[in-house]
Amino acid sequence: MPYINIKITDEAVTNEQKAQLIKGTTQLMVDVLGKSPVTTMVVIDEVNTDNWGIGYQQVTELRAEAQNGTN
Amino acid sequence: MPYINIKITDEAVTNEQKAQLIKGTTQLMVDVLGKSPVTTMVVIDEVNTDNWGIGYQQVTELRAEAQNGTN
Amino acid sequence: MPYINIKITDEAVTNEQKAQLIKGTTQLMVDVLGKSPVTTMVVIDEVNTDNWGIGYQQVTELRAEAQNGTN
Amino acid sequence: MPYINIKITDEAVTNEQKAQLIKGTTQLMVDVLGKSPVTTMVVIDEVNTDNWGIGYQQVTELRAEAQNGTN
Amino acid sequence: MPYINIKITDEAVTNEQKAQLIKGTTQLMVDVLGKSPVTTMVVIDEVNTDNWGIGYQQVTELRAEAQNGTN
Amino acid sequence: MPYINIKITDEAVTNEQKAQLIKGTTQLMVDVLGKSPVTTMVVIDEVNTDNWGIGYQQVTELRAEAQNGTN
Repeated sequence: MPYINIKITDEAVTNEQKAQLIKGTTQLMVDVLGKSPVTTMVVIDEVNTDNWGIGYQQVTELRAEAQNGTN
Repeated sequence: MPYINIKITDEAVTNEQKAQLIKGTTQLMVDVLGKSPVTTMVVIDEVNTDNWGIGYQQVTELRAEAQNGTN
Repeated sequence: MPYINIKITDEAVTNEQKAQLIKGTTQLMVDVLGKSPVTTMVVIDEVNTDNWGIGYQQVTELRAEAQNGTN
Repeated sequence: MPYINIKITDEAVTNEQKAQLIKGTTQLMVDVLGKSPVTTMVVIDEVNTDNWGIGYQQVTELRAEAQNGTN
Repeated sequence: MPYINIKITDEAVTNEQKAQLIKGTTQLMVDVLGKSPVTTMVVIDEVNTDNWGIGYQQVTELRAEAQNGTN
Repeated sequence: MPYINIKITDEAVTNEQKAQLIKGTTQLMVDVLGKSPVTTMVVIDEVNTDNWGIGYQQVTELRAEAQNGTN
């Protein structure tokens, strides 16, 4: 019966990657906890980089700095 | 003061249906718990079927299989 | 496949009330959206009144004021 | 290590406002709890006014009533 | 920067199992998405079986029925 | 109408600190977004350090290493 919510930035995540995240986390519930996959739910939220902050900064800013080599 | 979060797949949910979900869950808080509706909040998240998994599979896949009669 | 999360204060919620919240929200998904109850999940979080704020104040404070007739 | 999730209606929130929300909540974790900003995460969800309810009503409705002076 | 929230029922989950869930989901973010583990957060919520419902029923009830062979 | 959820580790957070987190985040919604405090909700979740992971490790482990000077 586990419910897993994965929040990631919306940076070109492919459908294949989403499928792998769903398979992988479900398998983990089966292997580690012996849960039934039939009622294991996974929901992936893709969050705009303007809306995600870490260390006082928006991820959009962090990505720009990384590209510009300022950080 | 209840806060209710409803996560559903984004499969053509109408505005009328959203209004009914909000009214219905709010009424439930009033009827079952005696809460005040004034401060009862409901937030509905519509999730892309690629981003929702159950039983190892993306809902997109499950819907396609159901249509094809393979499952 | 809906997932519903209900957050309420932990003020003597009975097991019967929890059962009613689960039944009621599940029924709503069936009636309004035609969802299958079999994969409809409801999770109830009971939150300490010290940890819930509204209008700048902790609910613990609001309850005390209501009892003292100061608000 | 705090994680803060801010849910607001998607009513023309500017990038500058998002940056301020991220800075402000991170600063609060530092000032009040002595947390490290480096691992403090903030995620902002902008919710459509059709999908947010309070007091039995969709926010879309409440905004229309406020404009029409009916409430 | 991923944030993963795992909700499971509070049925004697060991500390070793929690460590495995944290390692496993973090590794998945690294392998599938190329994310940095340093800022990958995992939060596990253990939910009382009275507070978790599926198919109209509390998990507490489902477990009792399974033991009694009525379901 | 904002809803803010703050997740922190349950490491001796005082009631005064909780009150400050509630006041501070509510004030931020008022100052940055012009929201009404009356319907601004804040919910604080205190998470056991065994249940919070970052960088593959449980926070419990990280705290022990910091004390032992191994990290």
